[in-house]
Amino acid sequence: MMYLTRRERFNAAHRLFREDWDDKKNYEVFGKCSNPNWHGHNYVLFVTVKGEINPETGFVINIKTLSEIIKRRIIEKVDHKNLNLEVDFLKGKIVSTENIAQAFWNELETPVRKMGAQLHSVKIVETENNFVEYFGV
Amino acid sequence: MMYLTRRERFNAAHRLFREDWDDKKNYEVFGKCSNPNWHGHNYVLFVTVKGEINPETGFVINIKTLSEIIKRRIIEKVDHKNLNLEVDFLKGKIVSTENIAQAFWNELETPVRKMGAQLHSVKIVETENNFVEYFGV
Amino acid sequence: MMYLTRRERFNAAHRLFREDWDDKKNYEVFGKCSNPNWHGHNYVLFVTVKGEINPETGFVINIKTLSEIIKRRIIEKVDHKNLNLEVDFLKGKIVSTENIAQAFWNELETPVRKMGAQLHSVKIVETENNFVEYFGV
Amino acid sequence: MMYLTRRERFNAAHRLFREDWDDKKNYEVFGKCSNPNWHGHNYVLFVTVKGEINPETGFVINIKTLSEIIKRRIIEKVDHKNLNLEVDFLKGKIVSTENIAQAFWNELETPVRKMGAQLHSVKIVETENNFVEYFGV
Amino acid sequence: MMYLTRRERFNAAHRLFREDWDDKKNYEVFGKCSNPNWHGHNYVLFVTVKGEINPETGFVINIKTLSEIIKRRIIEKVDHKNLNLEVDFLKGKIVSTENIAQAFWNELETPVRKMGAQLHSVKIVETENNFVEYFGV
Amino acid sequence: MMYLTRRERFNAAHRLFREDWDDKKNYEVFGKCSNPNWHGHNYVLFVTVKGEINPETGFVINIKTLSEIIKRRIIEKVDHKNLNLEVDFLKGKIVSTENIAQAFWNELETPVRKMGAQLHSVKIVETENNFVEYFGV
Repeated sequence: MMYLTRRERFNAAHRLFREDWDDKKNYEVFGKCSNPNWHGHNYVLFVTVKGEINPETGFVINIKTLSEIIKRRIIEKVDHKNLNLEVDFLKGKIVSTENIAQAFWNELETPVRKMGAQLHSVKIVETENNFVEYFGV
Repeated sequence: MMYLTRRERFNAAHRLFREDWDDKKNYEVFGKCSNPNWHGHNYVLFVTVKGEINPETGFVINIKTLSEIIKRRIIEKVDHKNLNLEVDFLKGKIVSTENIAQAFWNELETPVRKMGAQLHSVKIVETENNFVEYFGV
Repeated sequence: MMYLTRRERFNAAHRLFREDWDDKKNYEVFGKCSNPNWHGHNYVLFVTVKGEINPETGFVINIKTLSEIIKRRIIEKVDHKNLNLEVDFLKGKIVSTENIAQAFWNELETPVRKMGAQLHSVKIVETENNFVEYFGV
Repeated sequence: MMYLTRRERFNAAHRLFREDWDDKKNYEVFGKCSNPNWHGHNYVLFVTVKGEINPETGFVINIKTLSEIIKRRIIEKVDHKNLNLEVDFLKGKIVSTENIAQAFWNELETPVRKMGAQLHSVKIVETENNFVEYFGV
Repeated sequence: MMYLTRRERFNAAHRLFREDWDDKKNYEVFGKCSNPNWHGHNYVLFVTVKGEINPETGFVINIKTLSEIIKRRIIEKVDHKNLNLEVDFLKGKIVSTENIAQAFWNELETPVRKMGAQLHSVKIVETENNFVEYFGV
Repeated sequence: MMYLTRRERFNAAHRLFREDWDDKKNYEVFGKCSNPNWHGHNYVLFVTVKGEINPETGFVINIKTLSEIIKRRIIEKVDHKNLNLEVDFLKGKIVSTENIAQAFWNELETPVRKMGAQLHSVKIVETENNFVEYFGV
């Protein structure tokens, strides 16, 4: 089993809040991340897949194909976007890094399997001090 | 003359656009950076000051004081904010990295001089591939 | 299960040596790290916790609370300190990165559990070329 | 069980291709990585070993010894070399990052065990966007 | 005057040597960088231009246009290439980082001026420990 | 004129204080950096030299020779040392980053000139947020 990781990046606006809470309550829980005028990040995404090495190519899967899948399924939908307002697969969610990672996993799992590999983990770095990693279970 | 640099960071939303242009024209010039729903960045700011070494302390100026000035004059006003809507000294400007750097320079020049040093440069890193630097002239 | 990581930093002096060995023996085993006049590092600490996503907040735990725990239990005690002389929970230990990681684990496990998560790993980067990671078992 | 990682670096030329394919077929599968005139990388290698902490030294193993093993077994053979032409343990292989990682594992497993630790993983970073990790199974 | 920098990357093979020297002499001067079988690097290129801020756009020049110029004039010609054999503007040169930087400057100066800015510097990072910077004079 | 930079690193202990001040006064001015039990850093040093490109080699100067000079004049004297107690050329100085940079400049200027280049700058990074640069004037 070999583990192959592709890094991609996207820049997006977001806001942490619940519609069923008022601004005061949102600020108590989410702090300045609840700013109603939004803020944003340079998100860094690491997608790791695993599989046997294909003896014909020496690859688990071609990393360019992996990059294309990530771009088509994720980056094109989130880059230079508002994560709360514009991303179909995040609709109705609190766009915490945790929820984003889980949503990305759900978008990527099937297309990675169709390529003949398994999705192993989705890691999202929100700032140099904060990141999450999800393994699907 | 010794050059002393402090790095600070802020996460903010912004949008590149002109109010006197329609969305189509804004998109032609600013591309996806003109998204009306905003996007955002982890901005990294490097402020460089210069001056003689104070023989009593070995410092140009105390870097903690420099950090406090940057935080009070800049970071508190821009971190987790919308640069187009919420920052007094950016009002009415296109919030390109170039204009942000120049505006930061104007905020910092006097307080740095009052500390006994000279502002040398303001550098803003917008993404790992793009940054600007301004020297006040 | 979602994995959430917070990075914190501290700058400290230390020395690798055993009191029951003389300087010559300490130098043979620990090399220049045994310098009796100390040396130091910019240590980087990554603390990873795991848990279910809280559906109310989208968080495993609030990363600010995690940061506060790390600061109160670890950073305030080790930053700008001598690890051999000044840290209660390192007393009597050889302050190798391995032993530091294990001691940090012991300090963090209970307060993380009280927050409703599980401590997953403590990673300490001593230099850009050397780091350790501990998972508690 | 404590996990200890050493980072080493090497700069090498390589080419992805199969001798039994013509240039056109190689280009279809491997793209510009199949350039018959070679290209190259600053490879970064992370070797992680695991073991109990030796109570006499506070070390899993002395990281200098680990570094020496990696240098003697790997770096001296691959640094400033052509991976296709000049490395005994890569002869006849497609020098994909995956195959390189597996070959490095095979070179390192025995000498690490002789030092009293276990090889845990070999990670190779080919570019800032691409890396692989191998755990021996 | 505002300074705007774009980072681009390329992976290439090269060799330091003089045809009029034999292998022994080349090895004396260039060491392992003279390996006749080539080696390679992940080169990182920083191109800095300077100019007045255009009040209509807030830009010195559009950084996407700058990126396209660098890609068309430089990256397409050097990425995944052999710098000694395949790059028209490096023919006959010793492909030291210094000579590469000067050659890149010559390729970029005119197209940057045609965009309405001035080329300020070309910086090439060969390894994390070695880089050069050229200002055209 | 071409500018060539070499990065080197050293890990050292230090303390900011004046012997003619008591601990209270030292703490007021230098804060936790005045800890009598020392603290330390992973210092990163960038030495930039400038000169014409030698047409015979394509080098300003051989970067290995530059590295050797820095190691012999600086790194061997400061790495894994106490900067206050053990470094001849820092004796009697407040070991602020500013004073260290100036002292390193004085150590390097002559040997660089003897190699046929000019010392351009000495940059010392003390933490990821703080650095100084000195140009000799």
